[in-house]
Amino acid sequence: MMQFLVDDIIKTALLEDVNYIDAAADNLLDPKAISKAKFLAKASGVLAGIDVALRVFELLGDFKITKYIEDGSAVNKGDIIAEIEGPTVLLLKGERTSLNLLQHMSGIATMTAEAVKLTKGTNATVTDTRKTLPGLRVLQKYAVTCGGGKNHRFNLSDAAMLKDNHIDACGSITKAVETLRQKIGHTVKIEVETRNLEEVKEALSTGCEIIMLDNMDCETMKKAVELANGKALLEASGNITAETIAAVAKTGVDIISIGALTHSVKAFDISLKIF
Amino acid sequence: MMQFLVDDIIKTALLEDVNYIDAAADNLLDPKAISKAKFLAKASGVLAGIDVALRVFELLGDFKITKYIEDGSAVNKGDIIAEIEGPTVLLLKGERTSLNLLQHMSGIATMTAEAVKLTKGTNATVTDTRKTLPGLRVLQKYAVTCGGGKNHRFNLSDAAMLKDNHIDACGSITKAVETLRQKIGHTVKIEVETRNLEEVKEALSTGCEIIMLDNMDCETMKKAVELANGKALLEASGNITAETIAAVAKTGVDIISIGALTHSVKAFDISLKIF
Amino acid sequence: MMQFLVDDIIKTALLEDVNYIDAAADNLLDPKAISKAKFLAKASGVLAGIDVALRVFELLGDFKITKYIEDGSAVNKGDIIAEIEGPTVLLLKGERTSLNLLQHMSGIATMTAEAVKLTKGTNATVTDTRKTLPGLRVLQKYAVTCGGGKNHRFNLSDAAMLKDNHIDACGSITKAVETLRQKIGHTVKIEVETRNLEEVKEALSTGCEIIMLDNMDCETMKKAVELANGKALLEASGNITAETIAAVAKTGVDIISIGALTHSVKAFDISLKIF
Amino acid sequence: MMQFLVDDIIKTALLEDVNYIDAAADNLLDPKAISKAKFLAKASGVLAGIDVALRVFELLGDFKITKYIEDGSAVNKGDIIAEIEGPTVLLLKGERTSLNLLQHMSGIATMTAEAVKLTKGTNATVTDTRKTLPGLRVLQKYAVTCGGGKNHRFNLSDAAMLKDNHIDACGSITKAVETLRQKIGHTVKIEVETRNLEEVKEALSTGCEIIMLDNMDCETMKKAVELANGKALLEASGNITAETIAAVAKTGVDIISIGALTHSVKAFDISLKIF
Amino acid sequence: MMQFLVDDIIKTALLEDVNYIDAAADNLLDPKAISKAKFLAKASGVLAGIDVALRVFELLGDFKITKYIEDGSAVNKGDIIAEIEGPTVLLLKGERTSLNLLQHMSGIATMTAEAVKLTKGTNATVTDTRKTLPGLRVLQKYAVTCGGGKNHRFNLSDAAMLKDNHIDACGSITKAVETLRQKIGHTVKIEVETRNLEEVKEALSTGCEIIMLDNMDCETMKKAVELANGKALLEASGNITAETIAAVAKTGVDIISIGALTHSVKAFDISLKIF
Amino acid sequence: MMQFLVDDIIKTALLEDVNYIDAAADNLLDPKAISKAKFLAKASGVLAGIDVALRVFELLGDFKITKYIEDGSAVNKGDIIAEIEGPTVLLLKGERTSLNLLQHMSGIATMTAEAVKLTKGTNATVTDTRKTLPGLRVLQKYAVTCGGGKNHRFNLSDAAMLKDNHIDACGSITKAVETLRQKIGHTVKIEVETRNLEEVKEALSTGCEIIMLDNMDCETMKKAVELANGKALLEASGNITAETIAAVAKTGVDIISIGALTHSVKAFDISLKIF
Repeated sequence: MMQFLVDDIIKTALLEDVNYIDAAADNLLDPKAISKAKFLAKASGVLAGIDVALRVFELLGDFKITKYIEDGSAVNKGDIIAEIEGPTVLLLKGERTSLNLLQHMSGIATMTAEAVKLTKGTNATVTDTRKTLPGLRVLQKYAVTCGGGKNHRFNLSDAAMLKDNHIDACGSITKAVETLRQKIGHTVKIEVETRNLEEVKEALSTGCEIIMLDNMDCETMKKAVELANGKALLEASGNITAETIAAVAKTGVDIISIGALTHSVKAFDISLKIF
Repeated sequence: MMQFLVDDIIKTALLEDVNYIDAAADNLLDPKAISKAKFLAKASGVLAGIDVALRVFELLGDFKITKYIEDGSAVNKGDIIAEIEGPTVLLLKGERTSLNLLQHMSGIATMTAEAVKLTKGTNATVTDTRKTLPGLRVLQKYAVTCGGGKNHRFNLSDAAMLKDNHIDACGSITKAVETLRQKIGHTVKIEVETRNLEEVKEALSTGCEIIMLDNMDCETMKKAVELANGKALLEASGNITAETIAAVAKTGVDIISIGALTHSVKAFDISLKIF
Repeated sequence: MMQFLVDDIIKTALLEDVNYIDAAADNLLDPKAISKAKFLAKASGVLAGIDVALRVFELLGDFKITKYIEDGSAVNKGDIIAEIEGPTVLLLKGERTSLNLLQHMSGIATMTAEAVKLTKGTNATVTDTRKTLPGLRVLQKYAVTCGGGKNHRFNLSDAAMLKDNHIDACGSITKAVETLRQKIGHTVKIEVETRNLEEVKEALSTGCEIIMLDNMDCETMKKAVELANGKALLEASGNITAETIAAVAKTGVDIISIGALTHSVKAFDISLKIF
Repeated sequence: MMQFLVDDIIKTALLEDVNYIDAAADNLLDPKAISKAKFLAKASGVLAGIDVALRVFELLGDFKITKYIEDGSAVNKGDIIAEIEGPTVLLLKGERTSLNLLQHMSGIATMTAEAVKLTKGTNATVTDTRKTLPGLRVLQKYAVTCGGGKNHRFNLSDAAMLKDNHIDACGSITKAVETLRQKIGHTVKIEVETRNLEEVKEALSTGCEIIMLDNMDCETMKKAVELANGKALLEASGNITAETIAAVAKTGVDIISIGALTHSVKAFDISLKIF
Repeated sequence: MMQFLVDDIIKTALLEDVNYIDAAADNLLDPKAISKAKFLAKASGVLAGIDVALRVFELLGDFKITKYIEDGSAVNKGDIIAEIEGPTVLLLKGERTSLNLLQHMSGIATMTAEAVKLTKGTNATVTDTRKTLPGLRVLQKYAVTCGGGKNHRFNLSDAAMLKDNHIDACGSITKAVETLRQKIGHTVKIEVETRNLEEVKEALSTGCEIIMLDNMDCETMKKAVELANGKALLEASGNITAETIAAVAKTGVDIISIGALTHSVKAFDISLKIF
Repeated sequence: MMQFLVDDIIKTALLEDVNYIDAAADNLLDPKAISKAKFLAKASGVLAGIDVALRVFELLGDFKITKYIEDGSAVNKGDIIAEIEGPTVLLLKGERTSLNLLQHMSGIATMTAEAVKLTKGTNATVTDTRKTLPGLRVLQKYAVTCGGGKNHRFNLSDAAMLKDNHIDACGSITKAVETLRQKIGHTVKIEVETRNLEEVKEALSTGCEIIMLDNMDCETMKKAVELANGKALLEASGNITAETIAAVAKTGVDIISIGALTHSVKAFDISLKIF
């Protein structure tokens, strides 16, 4: 990730959380007092965001930082993830922002890792969607990769997804893909959203790179896999949960995209203990 | 909420989601084509963020907007929340940003309303915490009020919370409160974090406005309520869940603050159907 | 103060003052030439803003900085406040911005200290108001504390002030306070603006935390103090000057808020002498 | 003035003053309630900033605006300067920001007009300096022109001022001006700072456009005027006050620059009365 | 293009060009005076940027706008492209910014159209590169499409280009592509940069979507086309000029990317005539 | 140049070029791998922008930098301009942004130097205009000075140029200059645009500092020079090219302003070779 982008998010968060002073710390603590603190896992899962969380303190002042666990690694309850040492006043000012970021990102990585685990032994890749939280897409998409998932397109510019509205406006899937191919650059892939096997067939005939199977049942997806036979990547999409993902993966689809990875995140419990 | 603040969040989100073009819509649709769409509830709960969600389209271009349900109202599966009419290209560009905001905010309001319901018949008020997502605090705190909760302090400047570190640095709760009272303005309340009844007693003797009961069991909290006898507001805090909140509320505490309202949000399912 | 906030103000000021080059220095001086300079008090008063003034040079380049006098201390005409050593070109570029900030902030601290002195022996605290200069509130409010004053609320969000308009809209002071108490968070204090003793009485009966005595004469304020008898903080407000403040303080009010501390500031004379 | 620049200052000020809500107005008033208010002069002087003050409300929402007095005009105590009508909630949100700007700018215009008046019958023009408040230079310099003064250079890029440091680095005034003339563009004037008549003579011989007479007494300045005899503009500078300005003007200098116009401003009393 | 992005570029340009006032127009013209002006082509080519150029005036104030020629159309010397009517002061303030944008963008479109014309009758598509001017990429890439070219990848995130450094680090083209495929999302294409036919062969065997033929002569490129036989898109790159492009296009490559389209732009002469 | 201004341009460019990751480098390279690279001139001309180009890498991370050639110096094909050593991943991320800036700025310096050379032996100074590329004016104007040219006014605020519209509005050149002189500050020069000798004569009689000779032939300009006889600076303007500049310079004009220096720049070929 570009450090500039991350720093801007952190600064926004710090200003939001601190505003101009810490009414307690700035009035009560010696600005030169130094403390040590450790990031302590209070649950087990996959870590994401420790560099971002530590960066909060680098942006606030001079901190000695020791990192024990890297993003993308498993963490177990009780693990010490990192230790920091620096001015107590700044440590208290950065604490909440740092943890808010780390807990959210590790929550995403942990949920992603669980989804990936459930697809083991199949061909399927787990990806995120554009259902992210405003201003946090970069961090959320990065956290998905920490959990072993991959990223779907980042925005509307870098891949073209054809939905009903586009197709209706052009007359057919075939015409829509043809028209689009004339206009977009050679680095942009085309994905066609389909709702039944008829549409899958037509999409396959266009040479589009990716076909989304929108809310299809597993039987239908299996047939789509047979029809495609490797000529296009197939993406299963639509309210896929921990309960259903294994079965979806077994249909042979290439990609399973899950909005909940970024839109319904459970914070992963990590604390910052001053000692 | 200040419209400027909200508009900045929306613009950031749109740039993140669209970047420079919509590779499909900008290449395939007539820029003058007009569509209608409706926001459709696909679950039941409490609405928050509809004005923000509709503002996305106002910022993109000329849209006719009809709103049927207001923030803070109950919505039921199948309800039409609002309808918009405007350029199809802009409608598709704003769709995801609009829904990402609305689903997140309504998720918060719905979870808050459930917590509030569980405290019915007691004195307890449900509040949020500073465990919010970076850049989204304003929207998240507003959504909590839509669900019937109240807001805890917005940032470290506008109320003073005394924790171990501050107290240790001053020698005692009493000295910390005294010192702080000399320094802070007359509009700033002081809250003292306590871990046992001894600390509650000392805090009460200082005349501080609020006492936090940190991770105490219900028995202890009941005794704290007796001790306080209205001389300070008591706030229960620490991993309070849907399972435990009713019992906590019955102890007689004044405030129950819940981090999960903003750090572990489940998106509330709403779709934007073009018709 | 958050360093980010201060740095942004400094950068804005530098860009405003320098634009792209210093037409004289950049064309005539060796960029590697080094100079020393000292901040010299040319009047006596209270210092505020020396850290901000020195920060200007840290943001411009490598400077050796020695600070002799801290914010909040008395300075006498002829005192050397700090010395800096660094590239002459950058020293000249930063000079005006640095002094503009330091002279303004020390002007505020000095005027505040004079007001505070005039209240000695009484209970009264001197505070600022929201009558600040756009973009400079953080620095101005900090300078007030350097002069021994305290800060009134920082903005409209962090304390609630009830004025005629709010009261009229609700029907009475009592109803306004009751309604507001239902809505605001438990960390937000309520202040009621009153114009006569009737209103003071009603305000007292509501349990509001602060009562503003708006433009009352000293006799009336004394009676208000008797009525309140410690049940609410009383704030005297309205064109209080060096001539009138001592008498106001003797009425027994708790707070005296003075707009002129930040809206009518006389720059405190400090020069930066290169040697 | 560029509207963009002004709007950015206003938005910064509003965010600073309001933050996310108006704790009183947003909780107590019907968002659809409409009020009228008038800007009322409570002192006599020269108006500056009414367009900026009214713009605050335009940026907040839909307001009907009637302006009776223009920037640069005299106002007398009791004059109604303008009237506005719009949502009460927004009116209260914008009030303080609007008045803070208007009172500051009119304070500058009024002080400038007094200085200009004292130079009547002479050749001298009153100008500001770079001793402005960070972030407010555009507004402050504009207010000086409303009071009948003129603007000195806006920043270090648009005119070159030679001081001791530049002159010492080059060896002499003559060499400094020569070197500079080789380097700067043809639209940039050169001003030389002088401390005695010897330096004035040397400066005159260089053909520089402007000569600053730094802290000279009136006798010396008269001699400088004779020496110059129209070959360069002469600028008197250095702690010129209401007491001394008339005598300075009579020396025949062309320009009198006064830092206090922008660094020591007394707010001009104007209120916004809701009716 | 997203209007927000464009507006930000325009505002930056206006502030840069105007700063705080137009020293001539603001001092000499009646702010209410209205003028008409027409955009007049003084050369023949392809238009790009007229919407951006007209937007400058919409952002400055109220203008009546009539557009006669659309982006992407041919313009001939003497053509009236658009007419505007509005405040003369604002017209003069926006003129240079508007023309600077329009002349630059039309210069790009015109040069692109010439390149495209020279490839007529072949399969080859003309594209831009990342050799754009800082801050102007969105506008430059859009102008290329107005001239009939297509866009190469927008940035380093949205397609992966393998160069020597990446390949050396992985051991071989094959290993680099394999490793990358494991990591990047399914919407991201891989392009491999090759310098000879051996590398082309290896690249083809990896199934990468695009192969860049870096600075190859036409003979070699023809052989590459035969080798590829449609299994990957071939992109000719490296100092291709008006003299060489026709021959390159005839080799059968799919894409010809030309840095000069955006890094060496000749402004297209258009004037804004007030009448 | 102010470093802040330059850094902002670089950051904008990097975010534009990289977005959130480098899809190839971030996925394939060891983040700790270090490389060396050299900036290599592939043409001969004048260097401008090397400090800006190197700053790109300083902003990205820790780089060892050795600079061999300074801005404003001649470079010959094959020259090594500078060498850098640092993390390969960051080196690849900064490469394009660095070169885009350096090639553009050196292109300007080289073209300027050619123009300056053609005026040798005459009195004429070569300057730029306001025909710059949006957002890049600071860098472009600086590059002109590297090539031995000088800068015309930076923006509409810092010098006043009178054109037909202003003159028509005032009645005559004389009245326009007189009016303007009453209003602008003493540091602002006035330039009058003229189209024939009659206008030159009138302009001369006003005492304006600069007269622009707009699109006049050399004969007319010679006569203007005679008329002026040093009483005002004369600026030749209007499509002056390499073919015509020598003759224009010989007319005796003081300034020759050339829009093409910044609006029609040919990138100067420099590569960054990793070794």
